[in-house]
Amino acid sequence: MIRFECDYAEGAHPKILEKMVETNFEQTPGYGVDEYCESARNRIKQLCGNDKIDVHFLVGGTQTNMTVIASMLRPHQGVISANTGHVNVHETGAIEATGHKVLTVASADGKITAGQVRKVYEAHWNDVTHEHMVQPGMVYISHPTENGTTYTKAELEALSKVCSECQLPLFMDGARLGYGLEADGSDLTLKDIAKLTDIFYIGGTKVGALFGEAVVISNDSLKKDFRYLIKQRGGMLAKGRLLGIQFDVLFNDNLYFEVSKHAVKLAMLIRNAFNEKGYKFLYDSHTNQQFPIIPNDKLEILSQKYSYSFWERIDEKHTAVRFCTSWATREEDVKLLIADIESL
Amino acid sequence: MIRFECDYAEGAHPKILEKMVETNFEQTPGYGVDEYCESARNRIKQLCGNDKIDVHFLVGGTQTNMTVIASMLRPHQGVISANTGHVNVHETGAIEATGHKVLTVASADGKITAGQVRKVYEAHWNDVTHEHMVQPGMVYISHPTENGTTYTKAELEALSKVCSECQLPLFMDGARLGYGLEADGSDLTLKDIAKLTDIFYIGGTKVGALFGEAVVISNDSLKKDFRYLIKQRGGMLAKGRLLGIQFDVLFNDNLYFEVSKHAVKLAMLIRNAFNEKGYKFLYDSHTNQQFPIIPNDKLEILSQKYSYSFWERIDEKHTAVRFCTSWATREEDVKLLIADIESL
Amino acid sequence: MIRFECDYAEGAHPKILEKMVETNFEQTPGYGVDEYCESARNRIKQLCGNDKIDVHFLVGGTQTNMTVIASMLRPHQGVISANTGHVNVHETGAIEATGHKVLTVASADGKITAGQVRKVYEAHWNDVTHEHMVQPGMVYISHPTENGTTYTKAELEALSKVCSECQLPLFMDGARLGYGLEADGSDLTLKDIAKLTDIFYIGGTKVGALFGEAVVISNDSLKKDFRYLIKQRGGMLAKGRLLGIQFDVLFNDNLYFEVSKHAVKLAMLIRNAFNEKGYKFLYDSHTNQQFPIIPNDKLEILSQKYSYSFWERIDEKHTAVRFCTSWATREEDVKLLIADIESL
Amino acid sequence: MIRFECDYAEGAHPKILEKMVETNFEQTPGYGVDEYCESARNRIKQLCGNDKIDVHFLVGGTQTNMTVIASMLRPHQGVISANTGHVNVHETGAIEATGHKVLTVASADGKITAGQVRKVYEAHWNDVTHEHMVQPGMVYISHPTENGTTYTKAELEALSKVCSECQLPLFMDGARLGYGLEADGSDLTLKDIAKLTDIFYIGGTKVGALFGEAVVISNDSLKKDFRYLIKQRGGMLAKGRLLGIQFDVLFNDNLYFEVSKHAVKLAMLIRNAFNEKGYKFLYDSHTNQQFPIIPNDKLEILSQKYSYSFWERIDEKHTAVRFCTSWATREEDVKLLIADIESL
Repeated sequence: MIRFECDYAEGAHPKILEKMVETNFEQTPGYGVDEYCESARNRIKQLCGNDKIDVHFLVGGTQTNMTVIASMLRPHQGVISANTGHVNVHETGAIEATGHKVLTVASADGKITAGQVRKVYEAHWNDVTHEHMVQPGMVYISHPTENGTTYTKAELEALSKVCSECQLPLFMDGARLGYGLEADGSDLTLKDIAKLTDIFYIGGTKVGALFGEAVVISNDSLKKDFRYLIKQRGGMLAKGRLLGIQFDVLFNDNLYFEVSKHAVKLAMLIRNAFNEKGYKFLYDSHTNQQFPIIPNDKLEILSQKYSYSFWERIDEKHTAVRFCTSWATREEDVKLLIADIESL
Repeated sequence: MIRFECDYAEGAHPKILEKMVETNFEQTPGYGVDEYCESARNRIKQLCGNDKIDVHFLVGGTQTNMTVIASMLRPHQGVISANTGHVNVHETGAIEATGHKVLTVASADGKITAGQVRKVYEAHWNDVTHEHMVQPGMVYISHPTENGTTYTKAELEALSKVCSECQLPLFMDGARLGYGLEADGSDLTLKDIAKLTDIFYIGGTKVGALFGEAVVISNDSLKKDFRYLIKQRGGMLAKGRLLGIQFDVLFNDNLYFEVSKHAVKLAMLIRNAFNEKGYKFLYDSHTNQQFPIIPNDKLEILSQKYSYSFWERIDEKHTAVRFCTSWATREEDVKLLIADIESL
Repeated sequence: MIRFECDYAEGAHPKILEKMVETNFEQTPGYGVDEYCESARNRIKQLCGNDKIDVHFLVGGTQTNMTVIASMLRPHQGVISANTGHVNVHETGAIEATGHKVLTVASADGKITAGQVRKVYEAHWNDVTHEHMVQPGMVYISHPTENGTTYTKAELEALSKVCSECQLPLFMDGARLGYGLEADGSDLTLKDIAKLTDIFYIGGTKVGALFGEAVVISNDSLKKDFRYLIKQRGGMLAKGRLLGIQFDVLFNDNLYFEVSKHAVKLAMLIRNAFNEKGYKFLYDSHTNQQFPIIPNDKLEILSQKYSYSFWERIDEKHTAVRFCTSWATREEDVKLLIADIESL
Repeated sequence: MIRFECDYAEGAHPKILEKMVETNFEQTPGYGVDEYCESARNRIKQLCGNDKIDVHFLVGGTQTNMTVIASMLRPHQGVISANTGHVNVHETGAIEATGHKVLTVASADGKITAGQVRKVYEAHWNDVTHEHMVQPGMVYISHPTENGTTYTKAELEALSKVCSECQLPLFMDGARLGYGLEADGSDLTLKDIAKLTDIFYIGGTKVGALFGEAVVISNDSLKKDFRYLIKQRGGMLAKGRLLGIQFDVLFNDNLYFEVSKHAVKLAMLIRNAFNEKGYKFLYDSHTNQQFPIIPNDKLEILSQKYSYSFWERIDEKHTAVRFCTSWATREEDVKLLIADIESL
């Protein structure tokens, strides 16, 4: 069985493990104040083109989302998100468990627009009973989204502008950020994102690391006491250097971008193969996740050799599924898959 | 200005104030263990036809909803509700503030169906990633709903059956329960409700009392330590006898039902007047709230003498509004309104 | 049985009930924006000598404490309180239920000192592991305390100064504020309290009202969106005018101060009677609560005619109890009690 | 500088890294359902002598404590803990952030007794106002404690018995469990602990792993839906096999116990050295943490070559500090230290 079901099926990029082995018996202080964390922080600051940002390392995505969101909102505020957003659907209510409502806006492809944000904002403040309703307090987006779609620079600028006008800080979930930055046709850079969002994170777990997410805070008012909040939500790793080492390796010599590019390139090959076959896609993704709509009988054939994720039943005869590539996907496996798609 | 905008514009039924004045200097123990509370409890038990139920008195609706819901759910569970439900829309996130997500189902008229509940339940348990999602833990309905609509006995039986099969306790918000029980054509009694729900409450605030909601718990497993939870959520009134007195008076000589009937009768007169005029209604309500769709120019005329609540913009020329009656509405005011409707 | 066990055994001052009856059929808007609330607010502003303060009305003490505290703290912060504080002992964990730790300091008499606050503050910030500990975020005091003791103006000034220096907003629970202001020898006024605290409340429930607490916010940074928080925590009364009417009556013609003075005067008579008898007191209270230490055999005699609260077992032969007076206590009852004390 | 300040200064036992490298490109399902987790679970079940227990893997200690405690309590309940307990002091209020109070009992050495638990229980239920207080809902202990002290089998049996009688489930924090099991003179085994507690965890982070804690649930009523709770609190690692691999290696060929024994042996050598010198100890620890009380001038000498943790100022001339050994401590470093102690 060759696995395309997710982008976290393997361990980590070998360079990361090498560095861990190499440094294993070094003694460092705990909780993220060691020199590896410091070095990783500096690399990220440089890539973001801003040495005033704060950088923190947490272990996983749900943990990061709840820590960031709970740190930004007052008790009566909620977070605006696409109805398909990870925080709304796949975190077992982690956000609500910190006391906050997720204020959903309908999204066909996982993205939300500047117009939608403004509409939620205005609907709230124009309602005479607004004190009886959850106040929008921030905006959550992911890039790429759960559906592999990405924001253009123009779209992110528009969102950023509206957020600023409505005093709604903008938070970007970048669990798969590398695959977004290297998406076919993307015009967004880390520098843009650091500038256009108030806070975002660079996902490691799905992009070459064993685990780890690097939170970047640009907005000064969100920086205060963030380490307390990491600790309180269970995200402060005792051996913090494990996170530092990983991001230090990933942001050395462009490794993070290279492994991302690798995954996207292979995903686009898979996309083309399905495309050639005349299959449609549930979402127009140019990242490492592809969502082809496949006739059930053909899918059954693929199932014998390849694993994928079920996504949505389309009709009696068709199913939408997800094929994922990652930093670890082997070119030869993709070639096998493509050959099998061609002969369906 | 004659006010039809809500059902809490006046004080309380005079008999309640009389009793308060009469008993004012009696000394009673605090926190709901006095003889007035005990008497009110007994009256409610009798009306529910069940002396094994537990009855508690709280001050207001939002407080009651959050106390009940937080007492019933484990941390990873959410409450199924109509998207229009009071707990979802108009409680400033009180439910989320106790850590729980509101799991919404779309509702055109404020009601949810047994089929919808089963679908949410099955969708959850059939999803392989269900541990990453909020688990449905209970069902919240209101009767009447925010839109004045009511459940039939058959509908409530169906809901109750599904809830029981899915092990989802059923909670009925009865903030306006009297107006539901006395709704034109209603076939539901207090006894039915006590039997078909696991927990519900009898609203006082909008039905003749100064304030107060009487929670009735039928399901034994939900009874334990409920008084702790009332105290923790701020609902345990020091002078608990004020709640006891009110419900004791309301459930003496059928007062609660009579004042409810009064309000519904007047509301139906208003309904008929709009109906005769050929106006449609946003919801088919047979209770104390009516939602006529009125041409904007005609509405302007009514606005000069009567207050109502804006509900929804229908199109450029029409608006849906809410006219409320209550236990306190004067027949002569309704007659004036009807005359003015007729001459629109 | 004549009850001295608490200060909430009766209803309300007759003038309050009169006003409620008188205004019963007036129609007012809900949720605290009616003219009675407005009038009460103005009276309180005048008494506080500051028309820039915000005044809000809530129903009960626990509700007020949790709403205020949860509105003031960020998630990683806690509230400094005497270990005997109501928020620490007698609110079923309402503060923790909003996510915050109560940081206790030992208190012999219910009060805390400026020195204690500074010590907690310094201990936190001097600890190298402070990010692993709850950060002190505010100070909670009550006046009078649970033990009937009161702050002098000098003590409150010292506390206020330290709080300001440590950036810890000062919150005063005034559930029994009237009895504190009228305490024998008190040199504190409402004006002082409004000036020396950031936020405090004027208790109604125990001082002449049926129920109700008036929150006064002096510190501008604590004012924002407070009504949302009241609604979320279940404290926004639909018929808000019930709170407005009560405080409007209480602060008309000094009624609040007069009924407080009445209670304190009677309490001091009881105190003197025990004193004459040679009994000691657990706390040196000059307010409406008295805590005599009584030989068990004598206590048994008093028990036949009077109710009181058990407070603490002192030794095999002595017990500390609480005798409370209130706005409603009758002079003749106190005279009977004193006669019986004298003849013990 | 040779570091004795904590037991998490290095990476992981080399066998763990070897296995990670070896399995790096294997594809496994995520979230803890892979074969490595399954194998580790089976080893733990066998060592606990009970194949009915549930075993879950989480990333860190604070995360585990809050997840376990929040899963066990109803909203009005709190957890009994030593005042020195990690959950009370060093988790930035993580427990309170889930809504629960830590009910502290005074402890001189970090342990609590069966008698103390019974006293808290009885004090609660004997208090007539108990509904106004947080209800004790479970007991938290750590073994070894923060102070290096350990429970004897008889002490744990007594605690277990009282907990069972009071219906207070017993939770043991085993962040340093290995060092407790291998403590000089310990008569407790993993089997005993699995039998005498309702839930406990086996710490990996401080005992040879990169990170990771293995939760063992013996009490059936605590097993339900635990994976939801792990996910909600941010503890469900995407690449769950990283936890499985680590515990699988640690519980293969007794590695966990051997590395623990190693640390304890070296700690006892340090203890003896201080002892010979006539220095006293703050706590009587037979585990990997030692708390000697050292004259300040002598401490200054040691500081030049060795790092340790400051613990407590004893008097003007003496300070209590902590020296930690771990699975990674080198024998030659301890010898150097001992030589330097001898020549103080």
